[in-house]
Amino acid sequence: MSSTKPRIAVILSGCGVFDGSEIHESVLTLLAINRHGGEYQCFAPDIRQHHVINHITGSEMPESRNVMIEAARIARGDIKPLSEFVADDFDAIALPGGFGAAKNLSSLAFDGPNCTVEADVAEALTTMAEHKKPIAALCITPAVVARVLKGAEVTIGADADTAATITAMGGTHVIKGHGEIVIDRKHKLVTTPCYMLDANIGQIADGADSAIAALFDLIG
Amino acid sequence: MSSTKPRIAVILSGCGVFDGSEIHESVLTLLAINRHGGEYQCFAPDIRQHHVINHITGSEMPESRNVMIEAARIARGDIKPLSEFVADDFDAIALPGGFGAAKNLSSLAFDGPNCTVEADVAEALTTMAEHKKPIAALCITPAVVARVLKGAEVTIGADADTAATITAMGGTHVIKGHGEIVIDRKHKLVTTPCYMLDANIGQIADGADSAIAALFDLIG
Repeated sequence: MSSTKPRIAVILSGCGVFDGSEIHESVLTLLAINRHGGEYQCFAPDIRQHHVINHITGSEMPESRNVMIEAARIARGDIKPLSEFVADDFDAIALPGGFGAAKNLSSLAFDGPNCTVEADVAEALTTMAEHKKPIAALCITPAVVARVLKGAEVTIGADADTAATITAMGGTHVIKGHGEIVIDRKHKLVTTPCYMLDANIGQIADGADSAIAALFDLIG
Repeated sequence: MSSTKPRIAVILSGCGVFDGSEIHESVLTLLAINRHGGEYQCFAPDIRQHHVINHITGSEMPESRNVMIEAARIARGDIKPLSEFVADDFDAIALPGGFGAAKNLSSLAFDGPNCTVEADVAEALTTMAEHKKPIAALCITPAVVARVLKGAEVTIGADADTAATITAMGGTHVIKGHGEIVIDRKHKLVTTPCYMLDANIGQIADGADSAIAALFDLIG
């Protein structure tokens, strides 16, 4: 650690809401980390994307893309494989949303409460929890975190099906609105709905900013 | 126009700094439009990308992608082909940067001051100028605009080669720093350097915000 600024690892899942990381949430998470005086390093698993979606039509494209290579677009090339993540080097983790979290970082989109979480993602979350270091999860990623950190209290907004999935995992879901957060102090976990609600980009910026502000408070 | 909010057309060139639109600049332009009380509609030419770059290695990938389909990732699917752009429907145009502007929207990266500008891009810029409607151009895109609007005064920051290219086009370049803008009132054009300088994401947000604030002032 060459800096005394808080260091945040940001875990991405591709590049684009329907098959990767939601781009607005990702960029506005990075911005919030900068605005609150922190530094970020992006990570992603070096794995194949579940699929590639044409974001205009919603149809699957006959292509194969790599999660880390596509996520590098958001990171402007400065990204590391999640297998190289070391908890000692970071003060916190942040997970922007997007379907990539439910298709690439986990099988949530297909297996619901019985989903598996990608091994490096699960290890990063578990290790941070063991180190009592905080986690911020936006949009759909609170459901992924709730699968790993048993008994977590989170929000994904107000979607009843996803809330039921979290409950079935043994978690607790709290209904929240735009820009609002839930802080689970036991798990040092802050969550916010972002585009799990019908939102505009300003509301996403508010949510990311609130979540990262709370994350920095949890770093202490 | 169902709304009295200023309507801004945002022209994208793909999704990723090295072969498309720079993602931070694009998202922070959309955010600035929202924060200043406007609405946006994204457009992109429905053409093949010049190439696909692996953003980790910088190497070309043996793939073919479409500019509009990839730009739709930034727009969350809500994007239109630039051929459908109608100046009467918008109060202003904004162009985020990225190499896509110099490779897909124009041949600037290859032909410098003698570059050609993609036909729909040139027409959109020319038509807005004829309608006395303002244009905001970030990063490298001021050089594309300067190729179309003869005699424009712009900034791309401090890069001497690009400044010389703009001068060779018959434009005027003004050196500027982070978050600073140049306003060319004759051409109703506002420009800012963004990642044409070595910048952090907060400085990009500042630049986008300053440019969009000035753009809204030019709408009057």
